Formats: sequence, C-alpha cells, structure tokens
Amino acid sequence: MLREAGRWRMNPSDLFALVESRSSVRRYAERPVPDETILSIIESARKAPSAENTQPWRFVVVKDPQARQKLSRACFSGIYRPTQFAAQAPVIVALCADRSAFLERAGEIIQRIAFYQLDCGIAGEHLVLAAAALGLGTCWIGWFDRRKAKKVLGVPAHGEVVSLIAMGYPAEGTVPRQKVRRPLASMVWLDAWGKRYPGTDQRDSKEK
Amino acid sequence: MLREAGRWRMNPSDLFALVESRSSVRRYAERPVPDETILSIIESARKAPSAENTQPWRFVVVKDPQARQKLSRACFSGIYRPTQFAAQAPVIVALCADRSAFLERAGEIIQRIAFYQLDCGIAGEHLVLAAAALGLGTCWIGWFDRRKAKKVLGVPAHGEVVSLIAMGYPAEGTVPRQKVRRPLASMVWLDAWGKRYPGTDQRDSKEK
Repeated sequence: MLREAGRWRMNPSDLFALVESRSSVRRYAERPVPDETILSIIESARKAPSAENTQPWRFVVVKDPQARQKLSRACFSGIYRPTQFAAQAPVIVALCADRSAFLERAGEIIQRIAFYQLDCGIAGEHLVLAAAALGLGTCWIGWFDRRKAKKVLGVPAHGEVVSLIAMGYPAEGTVPRQKVRRPLASMVWLDAWGKRYPGTDQRDSKEK
Repeated sequence: MLREAGRWRMNPSDLFALVESRSSVRRYAERPVPDETILSIIESARKAPSAENTQPWRFVVVKDPQARQKLSRACFSGIYRPTQFAAQAPVIVALCADRSAFLERAGEIIQRIAFYQLDCGIAGEHLVLAAAALGLGTCWIGWFDRRKAKKVLGVPAHGEVVSLIAMGYPAEGTVPRQKVRRPLASMVWLDAWGKRYPGTDQRDSKEK
C-alpha cells in the first residue's frame, strides 16, 4: 500500500489479479467458515456506496445445517433445480433489500428505477471480492423461488430477497473455469453507443 | 500475492483498506485520464460475473469536452441540477445495459426481476474499485435525466442508461469524507430477518 495525497493506494496489479482469479465456485469443502471471517466479509459490503447512502442491503446469513436445508428445499425445487448445488455450500448469504427508504420510493416513482437492485449488486460484489481475497469461493444465485425464500427467511412486506450468495472454501481439486467474455470492442465505446473506442481491438487480439 | 491451491490470493488487508479508502469524489483535477488507464479499468469490469454470463453491461466513455458538455446539459438540468458537479469530471462513463439477451427477458418474465440492474451494479463497482486502486476518484450518479441521456448517447431501444459514473483524479486538497453507515447489527442477521447475529454488537461498539 502506498499513501498518496491522503488516500491509500494498493498495488493495482493485486486487485486486477484478484478480479481475474475470482470465479463462481459450485463445489465446496465441508470446512466451516468462522463467524469472524463472515462478519469481516460483510463489513466490506457495508462500506459500499449506495444512492444517497440509503444502504438498502440486509444480509441474512444461513449456516445452520437445518436452516440451510429448509431454505434450499423451499428455493431450489421445480424449475429452480439447476441451482440446487448451493444447498451444499456451508454458508448461504441471502442478500436482501429494505425498500422502505423514502429516497428509494421517490426514485422509483420519478425515475422508474429500482435503485436497490443496483445498490445490492454493488454491496454484494464487495462481499464476493472480500471473500475471494480471503480464499473463499462464492456464487451469485439469481435463479431461485423468491416468494418461498422470502417466507422461509421471515422477510417482511417492505423487504425483498434480491439474490442468494453461496459461500465456502472451494472443494479440493476444483479448478477455476476459464472466464469467457465478449470482446472489449463490443462493450466499450467512445462518446456514443456503438462508436469504436481506439485501442480496444488491439487489446482483444492480444487476448486470443 | 500468495498462490494457494491454484488460486491467487492477495493480502486481504489490502482489499479492505482499498474498500475503506474509496469514497465518492465530487471535485476533480483537470489532469486527463489516459486511454490505457480507462481501458484497464473497464477491463476489470468486463471480468465481473453476471446472471448466466449474459454480460449485459455496455460502457460509453464520454471524455471529449464538447461531448461531455452536451451530455451534461441534457442530463443535469431542472430537477437533476444536484448532480451537475459531474460535468466537471474529465471522464463520464455511461454505464448502459443491452436488454435484448434472451435470458434477461426470460428472467424478467418468470421472476419479475431485472437482472441487468444487479449485474450492472456488480460490473460498475469493479470499475470503481479498479479506479480507486489506480488513484482515481469516481462517483456513482443515479440522479439524471435518463431519457435525454439515452438520446444524446444514441442508445437504441433495447438499451438503457443505468447509471453515470464520473471519473478523474481528485482535485488537490479534497479530503475523503468519513463514511457514515448503519450499524452492522442492523443489517446482518442469522437464519432469519431481524434475528441477532452474535458478535455484531461488539463490532459496532468498537467502531464508536
């Protein structure tokens, strides 16, 4: 870390390597995750920015085997079976939102934007990156029965289960999958949608 | 960085310090941001996870002074004046979404969830953290005229401007604001919404 003009700076290549090494983990070791570790990770999510600092995120940590089984049975059956692997994770963090904040409601009415979804994405990814830095694997799960999850977790009417995040130490022998991404030139533009950003093609061809 | 079981690990305290040091910057130096830096930062966003790897994010980088002025005039007038400070940032990244992916549409219909908002939050925060690691300041801007931004940036009907992110080197003498956050005990629960997570109170009282 370097200190520069009152701001801490890390070696940027460390962050880039962390981002590169993070991958969705779907097989976990049985090794439990200590509470201290879980709370440090969520502490990192707590420090995330949000629209007008509303901090709509709430985290329900499900790690007791019976509680996990109850949640999993409710959430991952029927059309939601493809995400059933999450039932094996030693920790499931239900990333919820409290939608009662005035600014949230005003934003929705005036701009027709549900800011809480974006804000929960931001905070949830802080959690995912902090977990990765601590050697833990995670997987964002958007495919689950939200209505049943809400009921099982006792989420009130003004709340919502935005996503589940499975978390645990990766099972031995699991190798991170190679990241497949659209070319940079197809997602970064200059000044207008679709207008070429110089240098993107060269970066894409270097990657091949 | 440590290598462990095929995964890279950084010193976790470096990431926690980065997260702690990041703050929304609203005053920028005139110093331009090199294209190489901008593309490295967006490269980090490109590696973000997304629902079924749909990668709905698109980035329109606006840095030409005339283009920035045009965008700012369109977006930050009337009720949107409070975010006009962004017009002074040397770079405005319009974080857009392409909503035409089949899975995106299916998710919206079956689950009534706009996954793209969450995914754009994830990728945008990769961008924000990568910028912070490189000594750049950013500010998420959700309060702007979306309809006009869409028009000025030439975003097609299947696209949407999700957020603007102002970016640049912080102006000299700006001191990061102290982060104000709700107590951990009011946002982290065990097994059910509202159920106390042991250890959160102690962490909160240490912070005071």
